[in-house]
Amino acid sequence: VLKVLFWRRTITEYGADSLGGLGERGLIAALAAMFPASPLASVGIGDDSAVLAAPSGSVVVAVDLLLEGRHFLRSLSSGYDVGVKAAARSLADIAAMGAVPTALLVALAAPGSLPSRWALDLASGLGYEAGRAGAGVIGGDTARADTVLVSVTALGDLAGRPAVLRSGARAGDVVAVAGSPGHSAAGYALLTEGVTSFPSLAAVHLRPAPPYDAGPEAASLGATAMIDTSDGLVADLRHVAGASGVVIDIATSSLVALRGEPLAGAASSLFSRTGSGDSPESLTLDWVLTGGEDHALAATFPPGTVLPPHWHVIGAARPVPADSPGGTVTIDGEHHQGPGGWTHFR
Amino acid sequence: VLKVLFWRRTITEYGADSLGGLGERGLIAALAAMFPASPLASVGIGDDSAVLAAPSGSVVVAVDLLLEGRHFLRSLSSGYDVGVKAAARSLADIAAMGAVPTALLVALAAPGSLPSRWALDLASGLGYEAGRAGAGVIGGDTARADTVLVSVTALGDLAGRPAVLRSGARAGDVVAVAGSPGHSAAGYALLTEGVTSFPSLAAVHLRPAPPYDAGPEAASLGATAMIDTSDGLVADLRHVAGASGVVIDIATSSLVALRGEPLAGAASSLFSRTGSGDSPESLTLDWVLTGGEDHALAATFPPGTVLPPHWHVIGAARPVPADSPGGTVTIDGEHHQGPGGWTHFR
Repeated sequence: VLKVLFWRRTITEYGADSLGGLGERGLIAALAAMFPASPLASVGIGDDSAVLAAPSGSVVVAVDLLLEGRHFLRSLSSGYDVGVKAAARSLADIAAMGAVPTALLVALAAPGSLPSRWALDLASGLGYEAGRAGAGVIGGDTARADTVLVSVTALGDLAGRPAVLRSGARAGDVVAVAGSPGHSAAGYALLTEGVTSFPSLAAVHLRPAPPYDAGPEAASLGATAMIDTSDGLVADLRHVAGASGVVIDIATSSLVALRGEPLAGAASSLFSRTGSGDSPESLTLDWVLTGGEDHALAATFPPGTVLPPHWHVIGAARPVPADSPGGTVTIDGEHHQGPGGWTHFR
Repeated sequence: VLKVLFWRRTITEYGADSLGGLGERGLIAALAAMFPASPLASVGIGDDSAVLAAPSGSVVVAVDLLLEGRHFLRSLSSGYDVGVKAAARSLADIAAMGAVPTALLVALAAPGSLPSRWALDLASGLGYEAGRAGAGVIGGDTARADTVLVSVTALGDLAGRPAVLRSGARAGDVVAVAGSPGHSAAGYALLTEGVTSFPSLAAVHLRPAPPYDAGPEAASLGATAMIDTSDGLVADLRHVAGASGVVIDIATSSLVALRGEPLAGAASSLFSRTGSGDSPESLTLDWVLTGGEDHALAATFPPGTVLPPHWHVIGAARPVPADSPGGTVTIDGEHHQGPGGWTHFR
């Protein structure tokens, strides 16, 4: 893997500082040098396939696409940012099963004119985030394309535990979230408005930082269901509710801590500047409930489970009432439907 | 996996027969219905990740990109063709390690205007080729993009055997190939010239058919090195020679059977029609030695290994002469260098 077939043009066409100039072998060598290895990989970059040990007898595997113009803009995101985000999206899917990430494969397509520096920054971001999750980069593929695209395959290990599915929530379970729901949406709003006073929120939008350790931790604590909140808290909890045959109710009173700083300050700043939203309070609630791309983990636990403080209880699973569809999320007991799972709460 | 985030537009914008009209859930359900399941997958399409059993304690994994305009044209290839080719490219990488393919993950990006029929044909092709290899489709991702792209991750199982690497060839080993080197290149030449009289060659170009079973078979027979001939026989054997520190010599006299029908007839037909190549004989030799995308398997075996008839001995590994670089391929003992590993032999 990491074979390059389509970098046929020469340094004279693109210049030495472009991918086309770097050439096939140069690109692969440069990328590979930025990546952490995996102690579980007996064969890594450079053969037809990689070979990864699966000590517990199974592997968890997911793939995510990250496309220029669709999931990121090169005007807004650096190569490093894109690398972190590409890795985080796939790695969070592994953690959401209760598994420990072990390895990534990275398929990269890019224009020959792409600056080499940008590609190396991408590799650096991928390598950083893989390392933060404890995973190595063990293979991939490259090709030429008119725009940048990254397809990241992530693998993980359940350490002998059963996977935590979306379908295991039971009426009575508590619903909790680890991570920072709403921070990415707030960061996006700040970036698009040019507000620079809350850099940590902008950073989370550009470089999501999923709480990988919380995934296996939740599994150890007996989580009955879990999901990565890529689409937004309500939208993703609706997937859990649907797969599990329950209603999930979120108590807005339980969101106070999640809606505090830095979200509260960012909402005040944006509201006074742009008047967007109905109030700063409605902005923070909207961000927390419907903002996507946080890659927080939302899980359900049997009632009475003692949770570490980084798991915030935000609601509970309820039985589906007679003559009511399952798969719904309620807020303080009231139904809300709409795009993003839930529209502007008031 | 197989979550769709970016199909927000409606049936009115694209029409019911387009992907945009089919919508997110419709697309996933339609794709999933075309795919074989994997008996090894305890979690398949529909959760954050898939879970695949690894009974022998390791997994083999590879990823390949297939991009519209780069690896295929929708004017030349049907959706079914593209599906077969996308699956075959990744699955051949698994077989080339001596592993049995077990599962695929498919990441698909496409325009909202893409006809649903094309996407379903793609899924059908992916499913057919996965099934031919004995693998199920256990997950994936979808997104919108301006052109079609498919990223296929393939997984496989070594059944307790060590992986067959590129680096294990030793001086004295015989070099053999399973599959049909040159058929894809001949098919491409026929297609571009509009010659329709050798449909089996065009079919192999559009829908490569790697000999998956020959991979684990070679491992059982004691293969010392193996590679999938995606770049062409000489180019890929050069990778083996380089990784193994040997010279690989191909004997043109041993290629007679490989250069027979249907290649010989196709070469005569093309030569009389277009005058391309120096002679029909040079065309067949060129196709066999430098034609890419066949996804045949080339392997080295200890001298004296008794090979089944579908393994064609084509040469031998030699020691690297003093003051000569390793990693070279010779033809009848003579050096050949150039793009594609080897240029027009005469």
